[in-house]
Amino acid sequence: MGILAIGSVAFDKVKTPFGSREEVLGGSATYFSLAASRFAPVGIVAVVEEDFPESEVAFLQNNGVDTSALQRKKGKTFRWEGEYETNINVRRTLATHLNVFADFSPEVQEKHRSAECLFLGNIDPDLQMAVLKQMKRPRIVACDTMNYWIEGKPKSLRRMLSLIDILIVNDEEARQIAEEINLVKAARKILAMGPKNLVVKRGESGALMFNGVSMFSAPGLPMENVVDPTGAGDSFAGGFMGYLATAENTDEATMRRAIIYGSVIASFSICDFGPYHLGKLTNAEISKRFEEFHSLTRFDSL
Amino acid sequence: MGILAIGSVAFDKVKTPFGSREEVLGGSATYFSLAASRFAPVGIVAVVEEDFPESEVAFLQNNGVDTSALQRKKGKTFRWEGEYETNINVRRTLATHLNVFADFSPEVQEKHRSAECLFLGNIDPDLQMAVLKQMKRPRIVACDTMNYWIEGKPKSLRRMLSLIDILIVNDEEARQIAEEINLVKAARKILAMGPKNLVVKRGESGALMFNGVSMFSAPGLPMENVVDPTGAGDSFAGGFMGYLATAENTDEATMRRAIIYGSVIASFSICDFGPYHLGKLTNAEISKRFEEFHSLTRFDSL
Repeated sequence: MGILAIGSVAFDKVKTPFGSREEVLGGSATYFSLAASRFAPVGIVAVVEEDFPESEVAFLQNNGVDTSALQRKKGKTFRWEGEYETNINVRRTLATHLNVFADFSPEVQEKHRSAECLFLGNIDPDLQMAVLKQMKRPRIVACDTMNYWIEGKPKSLRRMLSLIDILIVNDEEARQIAEEINLVKAARKILAMGPKNLVVKRGESGALMFNGVSMFSAPGLPMENVVDPTGAGDSFAGGFMGYLATAENTDEATMRRAIIYGSVIASFSICDFGPYHLGKLTNAEISKRFEEFHSLTRFDSL
Repeated sequence: MGILAIGSVAFDKVKTPFGSREEVLGGSATYFSLAASRFAPVGIVAVVEEDFPESEVAFLQNNGVDTSALQRKKGKTFRWEGEYETNINVRRTLATHLNVFADFSPEVQEKHRSAECLFLGNIDPDLQMAVLKQMKRPRIVACDTMNYWIEGKPKSLRRMLSLIDILIVNDEEARQIAEEINLVKAARKILAMGPKNLVVKRGESGALMFNGVSMFSAPGLPMENVVDPTGAGDSFAGGFMGYLATAENTDEATMRRAIIYGSVIASFSICDFGPYHLGKLTNAEISKRFEEFHSLTRFDSL
């Protein structure tokens, strides 16, 4: 087992300028694991309703996702509803129903405890901690969070941050955690809280990585066929962690390539509704897109 | 004469989270020419009030700006007033007083007509055209514009676009000109209107360049000491055109380096109020910052 991820498996209701979908498979663990599985074996710890469709589970399994720790509980699967404006970078969350996720108690199976890489999706930091404690000695622990926990459980979040290697959040979340508007200053404060690396997702503007020594800026690939940005951030994290799981170390060059691989997978993720097309990605497509990112940014040194 | 620029010389009243200034030297031609003069000789065509301070003119001259075509007219110098929010990327224009600029009739002196590079700041496209007509055969013609002219003089603007090599605008302006929200599609429409290159300024997110064949994404340098973003876009254009004026051709590699030089000068421009510190920039500082942009973005190809 290369990577273990905890997060949500959900049904989304999404409206974008290019159409709408109901009851489409979603959730952070779904997008993350499908993205990561392009690179390395990945298992998910999540919870769904008792009669969650077998076809969705089979889709994950057929794409290399180990779903043996997917719990089934009485109630309804987590549901998220959102809408994107004509400027597709602007999103409104219309509803979040935790449902079976409300009293989720994640249990890590014996076979998953020795996973090399652990990704803690943006759930309650106390649950993130509970998962981390069940692990043996993961080589890399990355974690996401969200405004709900930054505001609601600041102490638990701070404890989590002291235990992880990489924090992956968007720019607003980084500013909120650090209580600092300037991103460079915010990064310094966050790194002082524990993580060795901070990855800041900035949507169409790409991503930034801070490690206290250097900064890396990855571009967003300008695209004309953006259909649904839902799951882009989790796909980014999945591509990023997936590549790291295959790499021998986490030196600067490796980390930078991981950021680009994350950006590559995210760029595919937003081209259609739902996560289904992530399963079809070939290595050739991924490599070609990686080179597109390279030619998009390269310029000669002096 | 390497570069001729037409635009405004103004007095700004600026408020940012870091302080406020009144009657500070500003205007597009001011920032542009100070930036460009770091690379090549530059002259400006602009208009100011009769008793415009000699010290400001001397400041421009001492920094290599040819001010012999700076007209003095009865009335007041162009004044702009703006305010930046706590998130310094958000700007509100509070007042624009054209004053002597209202009936400005730009005249290009004989000695300036053979300038190799022409930059048309964001004034009335009819005036931009009037300047272009007075020129001999500039090697590179670049042009900026703004929402006021995009809405108010669409036909004149379209005629201008058919005559220039490079359009330099921000992302909102690009979308507005093309009447297209998606930036890649907007770029294609704008290139079809005439320019061989479109440069899109995106503030802290950097810049994009489109030429119909390839795309280039330059990062914004994450900075912790942003004091006043006023003039950043014109400083960018000045560094960009300044470098192009020194280069032998406009091939892809040269254009990309020009974009980075523009970004370099813009990154210095925003560190203080007014344009005065642009005059103090050394070649060593510029080269060092160029390398910072390089190390910020580089990653290995596959």
